[in-house]
Amino acid sequence: MYKLYDFLPSGNGYKVRLLLTQLDIPFERIEVNILNQETRTPDFLAKNPNGRVPTLELEPGQFLAESNAILYYLSQETDFFPRDRWQAAQVMQWLFFEQYSHEPYIATSRYWITCLGQPENYQTQLAQKQPGGYAALQVMEQHLAEHDYFVGDRYTIADIALFAYTHVAPEGNFDLGRFAAIRDWIQRIQAQPRHIPITQA
Amino acid sequence: MYKLYDFLPSGNGYKVRLLLTQLDIPFERIEVNILNQETRTPDFLAKNPNGRVPTLELEPGQFLAESNAILYYLSQETDFFPRDRWQAAQVMQWLFFEQYSHEPYIATSRYWITCLGQPENYQTQLAQKQPGGYAALQVMEQHLAEHDYFVGDRYTIADIALFAYTHVAPEGNFDLGRFAAIRDWIQRIQAQPRHIPITQA
Repeated sequence: MYKLYDFLPSGNGYKVRLLLTQLDIPFERIEVNILNQETRTPDFLAKNPNGRVPTLELEPGQFLAESNAILYYLSQETDFFPRDRWQAAQVMQWLFFEQYSHEPYIATSRYWITCLGQPENYQTQLAQKQPGGYAALQVMEQHLAEHDYFVGDRYTIADIALFAYTHVAPEGNFDLGRFAAIRDWIQRIQAQPRHIPITQA
Repeated sequence: MYKLYDFLPSGNGYKVRLLLTQLDIPFERIEVNILNQETRTPDFLAKNPNGRVPTLELEPGQFLAESNAILYYLSQETDFFPRDRWQAAQVMQWLFFEQYSHEPYIATSRYWITCLGQPENYQTQLAQKQPGGYAALQVMEQHLAEHDYFVGDRYTIADIALFAYTHVAPEGNFDLGRFAAIRDWIQRIQAQPRHIPITQA
């Protein structure tokens, strides 16, 4: 059975939990508390030298890191990844957008506020993250104003990757009030079969 | 013919130029000077709402953004991308590692020093980028101490993606002197057929 090294509050971990659940693939979840530096132990670094969760163990000793790479691997030959080469490329475009232009702003702000519980210690950094986070949300809003999903008018791993931190963006002090298309899309994602919330282990 | 919206000093642009050249695919390169905010014009934002280069125009009006998504698209069904599903997932893992754990440290430092030419204005930020950049180089060094390439013992887009900013890391004040395996790998990449330098349009 797959083993998922995970941290429950992590949106990156949630992406993998959600897809595994929707694919009906059983897995054992192993909590790794990043707040206690448990990703920096020699034992964990032997699993993922980059020291991050989620990390998926497919077979004993066979590890895959990077949430979006795990989504890619698990979704191959399923309805969650397009067969069409151009649509597949667009999925990739959104996955890299998420990791480069979205996550470092929105997820990082949420981490300081909600996971560390120290917004007062990160006021300057939080303010610096606001423009980039809102820019990412605006790019999403513009796309979703004309499309129900990110690629090919169906639910794919591009939606899963972007949903993970977007639906909890308010926990990082990002107001979704002015993003009507994003709010509609969030409801559309939450209505997918076998959807689970981020807090569900 | 493909049109590549590009900025010559950009390592992200270079990835695409290098792969297109090695695939022997002709393309028209259109310089977009990001220092003059040319990625923020209405005309460019209509091509890529996220306002970044490289952006590839495949057919008139059909655009693909994100350097590593472009590498993915172009390399499908070629020797630069593995057919094997597990190896393909490992390529993805390294591509996301590059964009999340490598580029924001090493490329950003180089940008402030070499492209903006303002190291004196970014001393604090440059110092903050050092630990993350060296951590990424150490992950690469550890892998390359035991492998000639990043995935499957052959040259793939994982190598192209990581080569782009690693071989110019000294321009961002990262010393490669203690990374012998990385330096050997750089020579191995530069010896590939049809290799071009980052400065070649």
